[in-house]
Amino acid sequence: MIVVMKSRCNKEEINAVIRRIEEYRLTVHISEGVEHTVVGILGQIPPELQERMELLSGVEQVIPISKPYKLASREFHPQNTIVKLNDITIGGDEIVVMAGPCAVESEEQLLTTALAVKASGANILRGGAFKPSTSPYGFRGLGVEGLKLLRKVSEETGMPVITEVMSPGDVELVAGYADILQIGARNMQNFSLLDEVGKTQKPVMLKRGLSATIQEWLLAAEYILSQGNEQVILCERGVRTFETYTRNTMDVSAIPAIKKVSHLPIIADPSHATGKWHLVTPVSLAAIAAGADGLMIEVHPNPDLALKDGAQSLTFDNFSKLMSQLTTIAEAIGRKLAATGVEASP
Amino acid sequence: MIVVMKSRCNKEEINAVIRRIEEYRLTVHISEGVEHTVVGILGQIPPELQERMELLSGVEQVIPISKPYKLASREFHPQNTIVKLNDITIGGDEIVVMAGPCAVESEEQLLTTALAVKASGANILRGGAFKPSTSPYGFRGLGVEGLKLLRKVSEETGMPVITEVMSPGDVELVAGYADILQIGARNMQNFSLLDEVGKTQKPVMLKRGLSATIQEWLLAAEYILSQGNEQVILCERGVRTFETYTRNTMDVSAIPAIKKVSHLPIIADPSHATGKWHLVTPVSLAAIAAGADGLMIEVHPNPDLALKDGAQSLTFDNFSKLMSQLTTIAEAIGRKLAATGVEASP
Amino acid sequence: MIVVMKSRCNKEEINAVIRRIEEYRLTVHISEGVEHTVVGILGQIPPELQERMELLSGVEQVIPISKPYKLASREFHPQNTIVKLNDITIGGDEIVVMAGPCAVESEEQLLTTALAVKASGANILRGGAFKPSTSPYGFRGLGVEGLKLLRKVSEETGMPVITEVMSPGDVELVAGYADILQIGARNMQNFSLLDEVGKTQKPVMLKRGLSATIQEWLLAAEYILSQGNEQVILCERGVRTFETYTRNTMDVSAIPAIKKVSHLPIIADPSHATGKWHLVTPVSLAAIAAGADGLMIEVHPNPDLALKDGAQSLTFDNFSKLMSQLTTIAEAIGRKLAATGVEASP
Amino acid sequence: MIVVMKSRCNKEEINAVIRRIEEYRLTVHISEGVEHTVVGILGQIPPELQERMELLSGVEQVIPISKPYKLASREFHPQNTIVKLNDITIGGDEIVVMAGPCAVESEEQLLTTALAVKASGANILRGGAFKPSTSPYGFRGLGVEGLKLLRKVSEETGMPVITEVMSPGDVELVAGYADILQIGARNMQNFSLLDEVGKTQKPVMLKRGLSATIQEWLLAAEYILSQGNEQVILCERGVRTFETYTRNTMDVSAIPAIKKVSHLPIIADPSHATGKWHLVTPVSLAAIAAGADGLMIEVHPNPDLALKDGAQSLTFDNFSKLMSQLTTIAEAIGRKLAATGVEASP
Repeated sequence: MIVVMKSRCNKEEINAVIRRIEEYRLTVHISEGVEHTVVGILGQIPPELQERMELLSGVEQVIPISKPYKLASREFHPQNTIVKLNDITIGGDEIVVMAGPCAVESEEQLLTTALAVKASGANILRGGAFKPSTSPYGFRGLGVEGLKLLRKVSEETGMPVITEVMSPGDVELVAGYADILQIGARNMQNFSLLDEVGKTQKPVMLKRGLSATIQEWLLAAEYILSQGNEQVILCERGVRTFETYTRNTMDVSAIPAIKKVSHLPIIADPSHATGKWHLVTPVSLAAIAAGADGLMIEVHPNPDLALKDGAQSLTFDNFSKLMSQLTTIAEAIGRKLAATGVEASP
Repeated sequence: MIVVMKSRCNKEEINAVIRRIEEYRLTVHISEGVEHTVVGILGQIPPELQERMELLSGVEQVIPISKPYKLASREFHPQNTIVKLNDITIGGDEIVVMAGPCAVESEEQLLTTALAVKASGANILRGGAFKPSTSPYGFRGLGVEGLKLLRKVSEETGMPVITEVMSPGDVELVAGYADILQIGARNMQNFSLLDEVGKTQKPVMLKRGLSATIQEWLLAAEYILSQGNEQVILCERGVRTFETYTRNTMDVSAIPAIKKVSHLPIIADPSHATGKWHLVTPVSLAAIAAGADGLMIEVHPNPDLALKDGAQSLTFDNFSKLMSQLTTIAEAIGRKLAATGVEASP
Repeated sequence: MIVVMKSRCNKEEINAVIRRIEEYRLTVHISEGVEHTVVGILGQIPPELQERMELLSGVEQVIPISKPYKLASREFHPQNTIVKLNDITIGGDEIVVMAGPCAVESEEQLLTTALAVKASGANILRGGAFKPSTSPYGFRGLGVEGLKLLRKVSEETGMPVITEVMSPGDVELVAGYADILQIGARNMQNFSLLDEVGKTQKPVMLKRGLSATIQEWLLAAEYILSQGNEQVILCERGVRTFETYTRNTMDVSAIPAIKKVSHLPIIADPSHATGKWHLVTPVSLAAIAAGADGLMIEVHPNPDLALKDGAQSLTFDNFSKLMSQLTTIAEAIGRKLAATGVEASP
Repeated sequence: MIVVMKSRCNKEEINAVIRRIEEYRLTVHISEGVEHTVVGILGQIPPELQERMELLSGVEQVIPISKPYKLASREFHPQNTIVKLNDITIGGDEIVVMAGPCAVESEEQLLTTALAVKASGANILRGGAFKPSTSPYGFRGLGVEGLKLLRKVSEETGMPVITEVMSPGDVELVAGYADILQIGARNMQNFSLLDEVGKTQKPVMLKRGLSATIQEWLLAAEYILSQGNEQVILCERGVRTFETYTRNTMDVSAIPAIKKVSHLPIIADPSHATGKWHLVTPVSLAAIAAGADGLMIEVHPNPDLALKDGAQSLTFDNFSKLMSQLTTIAEAIGRKLAATGVEASP
């Protein structure tokens, strides 16, 4: 950590800074610049020290040097984390595609969709049983009934399922039915929930918050990792900006940025990022070209009758076209789509 | 709701839109413009209809007319909501000041601070027992021990207390100690938590999310109101923008905007909005001048030794100066500070 | 245009709205909803009418229906605009790559770079002679000297050149040396400059403003188009958000969004969008996968000695690797790189 | 400037960094931390050095220590700059109010408005002759004719006038008629224009760009100051965020922030910041309470007939009420409104 003193600070102020640092049994290193004296602090620095130093008289600015996350950092864990699920690997050479309806509505809707997306090459079934809704009057999901349908269709199709958990009290319940636990964007900093999923042995897919920086996102992952759960998958789903044509703004450069600073797998969710079905295919191809390890795509048998997020859902036909273009792009960058899960028993 | 057809749509597409609307037993109203045919939909419109209509062939845009929140809307509830707490009213003529440390650290720290802020005119004691921390390695609060200290100091000083609840499972616990339940910015769309506090009879202070629009904020309030709890106080605490000089950007115009569209009281939190103690006083005065019903201010006996958010905390002395300027500004706009709570027994 | 009346408006307020519309000789269409009366306005609506209607008593909201841009709109011009430059086409099947140093520094630097990028497959040479600099103390370019070097190297290599013009008074000068005029992000709404380049016969590349919506960007293009210059190329170069890891945030979904609403070609500038050379290649591939018609890439013989934007410049070697990956991605989506310009004389 | 080396960098990389610094004849200062070696650079550092160092092998991060602006900085110029105009001072104890129509439409409109706002206490007349318009089809002002009307009305009322200049070529023309030159938000980084107004002897009011940081804004001021013109007034007029209820988001904390880091006067423009007339008064009071040196307010005899920005314009009556509340707030913070200019001849 570096303490930059004001250009007009006096000797006594510098000494007070030094004394404070030494109270923490840290080492001090002074450097006198043309305009500013700079005090370096060496040693294991407690998190609250930055703000405390900022308040001392004569201090202009305090600059942290070390990254605040460790377990999520590539610096401390150079090899890619690879999450395994049956035959599927996430974070290795393969590209995974999680597809399915925004919300589970009925057994027929879910099974039809699962069979269709699997036939087109999807590996994992997505579907919401507990749904976040901006309005209390919107559809909030089938709850436990939805979880049971997900499990049933998973067994019939051999596809692992991913579904969202919204409350710490529901983690055990949802983990009983799901293969991957999803933390939604609005809950990225729901720390009680992060602690709870960190205590399970299930892979967790952590969506980026609407206005979360890359650093905050990795610190949220660090919550889960520090509870002992190493199977964390990140999901870029667009951030909030001033642009209103799209629902959110897909931050495509976050994909290679995460690959640089972290070892965790990252997938992209173009459905929520764009909010418009006709943008889903080009943005999916872009995410894979940028290095994403997979996609999460909303597909519905009849988007114009969906209970939720119809406007961003692909039809079976459009999903099938997307998958065929995806195969070509994956090859172009030297990767391939993962297999479509354990075959259903005959 | 209004459906704008594409300029080149055909008769059959318009008819399909009309048929779909009539399936919902809603009334249709057609208007042929120079460039666009516009289809009005009259009647009680289900929330999912907008996205469904957007997907029909030939549709350019679907525009909702009614506000999605009702209970929080001034249109349906013209009189100001006034929350009462002992002798204090929030949302009427009086201005309330909630002050105290960011986090409860010890009985001495809390009691000293409470006595100091009360002496300067604060009405309500704030202090965090459960603390959200961006990093899992930061200070996360004293928990139940902190709640007990808050209750104890409340009884010794006669000041009602406000403290944050972060998890649905903790609502009953926290409500046993607090006079006002606080929902933090990161939890504004933690819908399970909103449901839970909506079921209590305690006033709830709902902070605006980091990147929440005014409409989303009022929809979050609607969650609480629709559970039967009418005592909701809003709190503007800054939104996230590109500016990095301040921790967040105080949206001062949201204060009169909320007053226009809603009947709920609104207070401002300049400590979190700015993140810098030297900006807290001018921004506090601004918020009151703009019509806020109160302030929430972080105060610490020794900000440079605080376990959390020291950089934005006022010293007792600076808080006392703020309160004296605040009194003058309040008078200038025809309001006055609320009394400082029930007197402590001698 | 649609005028939504307040739910409690009275008959007289509705009549006043109708009278005002009729003064403009426009047709009125009334629709009585459950909560709101909605007044449709039919006919050619003057731009100032929206704000004027909003101020009438009893009016809740005024919603425009027509898009404010016409010449830039695909609705009124369904075929793609294709800009031609020697053998190169921009906006058709081919993908163009504009590459070169951020700033022209010397003949040797420019010629070396031009030869290197051409050898790797770049079609157009970029290089700044007039450079915008956030600080008045930064490098502001070689000016006319830089323009002359660009022309000279263009003739030696057969590559057309693109360079920025920053001031209306310089348009004629710059047009005398450049093949494409570039309008920088900071000047997207420099309306005097837009008018001026609109009067030339040179293709204009219009960069998106740092915080410009897609609609504002197309309205800026409309300025140029409405002066009679139809050769406008758009350039997505990242928008400003709260994220600080990257210099800006590449809005990759803007690429297919522009293709949907406009007929103009769009290229991407990953160098400025990311500000970090190691993100340039993945984001370039993403932009092409999303449907961009080309790229603008900063390349420098020695990025660590560049006078400007070294951190985002590729070395010759990295550029060459990018071009080879780009060729594969282009093929994967059924497009191909444009030829590398007229051959230099032997 | 501080160079943070990667945690796994080797000796040779550190030596290469040191050699590069010594080539610039700067002094090196090494500090070995637990995780990172930190290299301090002492001496006069050229602007391009940061990016150059970032590219060297083994470098993690380069952190500048000195502020990039000097002339605009309070550090180098501790006393407030006070701009004088007739009897009026801007930046001292007095509060100035610039009021008038968004656009000059006719002599009658301008004179009526000038007399009305002067009668209510406004000191300076505002009015646009050259108007930026997002659409090429909107009203772009009366041009020279508007300038002449401004001068005429200025002489009749004794009020100095402020008006916008949009193009470097117009600076001399506009300076011939105006008392203060206004640089609009869209032109904050129109560097040719900044250079040009910096060469005049007229006070310049520099609006903050839609998405400009405080540092970029002060660097834009530095352009003007470094040309020799010391009379720069800053104007906060709202920044662009995700919120759509208001036209922009007034960054009220920027007012005390500017006062802290700079000596330049700052005024606020609540009309453009909010875009809604009913928010103008509360936000005006807030800005003054936060320490602004003045206001710029749009006033129109008949806002519902204005050619531009009617929705945000106050009527004479509402402006008069604002001025009376303003007087009370100014007193509450120990300031007073400036006199209303030289009296018009009888």
